[in-house]
Amino acid sequence: MLRTNLPAAQRMMERLDALARHTDEPGKLTRLYLSPAHKAAMAEVAGWMREAGLNPVIDAVGTISARYEGSEPGLPALLLGSHIDSVRDAGKYDGPLGVLAALAVVEELQRMGERLPFAIEILAFGDEEGVRFPMTLSGSKAVAGKFDMAALAGRDKDGISLGEALSGFGYDTSAIPAIARKKEDVLAYLELHIEQGPVLEAENQPLGIVSAIASIARLNVTLTGVAGHAGTVPMAYRKDALVAAAAMIVETEAIARAMPGLVATTGRIEAKPGAVNVIAGDVAFSLDIRAPEDEVRRAGVERILTACRAIAEARGIGITIDAGYEEEAALCNPLIKEALGAAITAFGYRPITLPSGAGHDAMAFVDLCPMGMLFLRCKDGISHNPAESITPEDGEIALAALLHVVRNLDPKAFTVKA
Amino acid sequence: MLRTNLPAAQRMMERLDALARHTDEPGKLTRLYLSPAHKAAMAEVAGWMREAGLNPVIDAVGTISARYEGSEPGLPALLLGSHIDSVRDAGKYDGPLGVLAALAVVEELQRMGERLPFAIEILAFGDEEGVRFPMTLSGSKAVAGKFDMAALAGRDKDGISLGEALSGFGYDTSAIPAIARKKEDVLAYLELHIEQGPVLEAENQPLGIVSAIASIARLNVTLTGVAGHAGTVPMAYRKDALVAAAAMIVETEAIARAMPGLVATTGRIEAKPGAVNVIAGDVAFSLDIRAPEDEVRRAGVERILTACRAIAEARGIGITIDAGYEEEAALCNPLIKEALGAAITAFGYRPITLPSGAGHDAMAFVDLCPMGMLFLRCKDGISHNPAESITPEDGEIALAALLHVVRNLDPKAFTVKA
Repeated sequence: MLRTNLPAAQRMMERLDALARHTDEPGKLTRLYLSPAHKAAMAEVAGWMREAGLNPVIDAVGTISARYEGSEPGLPALLLGSHIDSVRDAGKYDGPLGVLAALAVVEELQRMGERLPFAIEILAFGDEEGVRFPMTLSGSKAVAGKFDMAALAGRDKDGISLGEALSGFGYDTSAIPAIARKKEDVLAYLELHIEQGPVLEAENQPLGIVSAIASIARLNVTLTGVAGHAGTVPMAYRKDALVAAAAMIVETEAIARAMPGLVATTGRIEAKPGAVNVIAGDVAFSLDIRAPEDEVRRAGVERILTACRAIAEARGIGITIDAGYEEEAALCNPLIKEALGAAITAFGYRPITLPSGAGHDAMAFVDLCPMGMLFLRCKDGISHNPAESITPEDGEIALAALLHVVRNLDPKAFTVKA
Repeated sequence: MLRTNLPAAQRMMERLDALARHTDEPGKLTRLYLSPAHKAAMAEVAGWMREAGLNPVIDAVGTISARYEGSEPGLPALLLGSHIDSVRDAGKYDGPLGVLAALAVVEELQRMGERLPFAIEILAFGDEEGVRFPMTLSGSKAVAGKFDMAALAGRDKDGISLGEALSGFGYDTSAIPAIARKKEDVLAYLELHIEQGPVLEAENQPLGIVSAIASIARLNVTLTGVAGHAGTVPMAYRKDALVAAAAMIVETEAIARAMPGLVATTGRIEAKPGAVNVIAGDVAFSLDIRAPEDEVRRAGVERILTACRAIAEARGIGITIDAGYEEEAALCNPLIKEALGAAITAFGYRPITLPSGAGHDAMAFVDLCPMGMLFLRCKDGISHNPAESITPEDGEIALAALLHVVRNLDPKAFTVKA
């Protein structure tokens, strides 16, 4: 067991519990972007930053930032951030861990009286989950200079637009473009996050180096067979859309298993007419296909759709495939991966590299600066659920590793892009 | 093309159109048991019977019967029947064809001045579809002595019990047990019905000999896997209940295809939580398994459930199988099948034998007397739908075959059971 003795670690765990009390729904943790609970959480995080002697600033989309200067004022900054919004009925760690670990890193540096050859900027974003408005990553995109002003017109289910909600919070939306950081002012972006998956726990390792944030393709498959009486149509005469869908789902799994890194999921299926004694004439199902590399995702989509079309043709079933959305992979920077590996190794653990199948704020930074992510194992891989959990020991290990990376980072190694 | 020149055939087709005008729902054909439309249809059918010189009698469950005496009064009767109720938004031929063909047979015999060595009893049942009350085959079960008086307490969706509805029609429910025919008064039961399936059309033959009314098993399968994030759980760590269900559905089809006579259908499936980006943790689906022989059905159910359990075990998925209902097969009498085959052959067609996957009034008679069914092809195998259709030529062929069987039936060949 690692014995790091970091006073900030226990405080970080206490703050994670405290922050979870700010909720829009009593009895569970739900903290949507620009809600009263979000405002209260922002005030509490800003208060902790001030206690640490920092000067938090809130930008025009609700991101809190606080700068810890380096050995001299105005040096390029290492951005350490994550988000403080949540899904509905969420856990405590998805997002807040990365924000409060960043604050704890600065507190440890202050305790040791240490200034680095670069500044640190802590970032607490307010819209990573994308639950309320039809956009996501509002805060990180604004910092990365990628905020699309057209998104201000998007409305929540009560008809309130993002622009109206921001104005209601007292923000001036015309100031959003100015949030964007200049490349020369930024060294890199680094985010600590719970894994939200089962790999690290299964490998019995607390930490993982993220290789990339996976690319995604979402598709909808619609099959048209012939409905018929379950008793009167012999097997040889059937055009059963549900058996065709089942064959496609089984084949999709086989393809994904055979392609390292690829994951493919059918989460939604609907068979019509949906009666016990009627052969299904129409079936629709979803495909969610992800891979850490764009080429793997593209090849996976190609193989899966080819297989689906072949099954449909062999069975005389009509098939329509609608592309939903597609997101390119965001690759993590090799130097940051190396630095994370060195820290993990230094504490006696195995430097496991794994992709992030879920999206994160870090994605937004891929064109601005070198980007990296450190994953912390969570119990049973469960996330987006009140059962989401990390141990205090793992929290301390994560903080120690993050601190190790920060203290050992050579700013000269990161070339500033033109 | 058969040229039979039966005057009753065109009249039968016209009556099928006329009867379809009696509906509970304007714009479509819906004629539920003991509804105003059923009452009107009964009056019209009874009227046609009287026009044919018969004396229709209505029993205490709403079955119309009309007896055409044989060469001497009081001979055992060949029962020729079917039903005049319908499903909602039905076609014209499912049921009424068998009733009006029976009447046309008698009309042709009368036209030829022919009396047979047995009586004919035409039966028009009122409850074959079982749409309104939680029972089915009320009319045929009463005639066959199988009516369960407990069914009188069953209620329709408006809360009206079967007993109340019968009383409302002016029937005395205490007279129901007396409807039962004595074995010595009955020669056999024979029913003409549209196939409601695609086999005869595919074989390019108008008529088919029913081998048996299929046995049915209905089951519900519930699978419990582990829900998870579609991006963060690698394929090797998944317990995806939907892929398991898909594998079971594919395997079920393979088993049914490999067992002659067996049909197996999954018409209903539900995956939860049902989100595009979440691995399904819970799936429920239906199984409808039928075969003309009980042993084949039992063996099919056994193989399918063994396969489902093996798939669940191999995938670490929890499985619960709930038996729904089970119905034994009703075998058609060999002598009647032979007589039907002789008639079909006499008109130059191939005597195809096929099971009935759907239930029919004939099922109720299996313990009372020799039972048989003649199937007539219908367009595209469609039934329970306004598109249900037969050609006038096929209607005439069916009538001619039925008449041929009736005229050639040797009453001495049918042993009366003790």
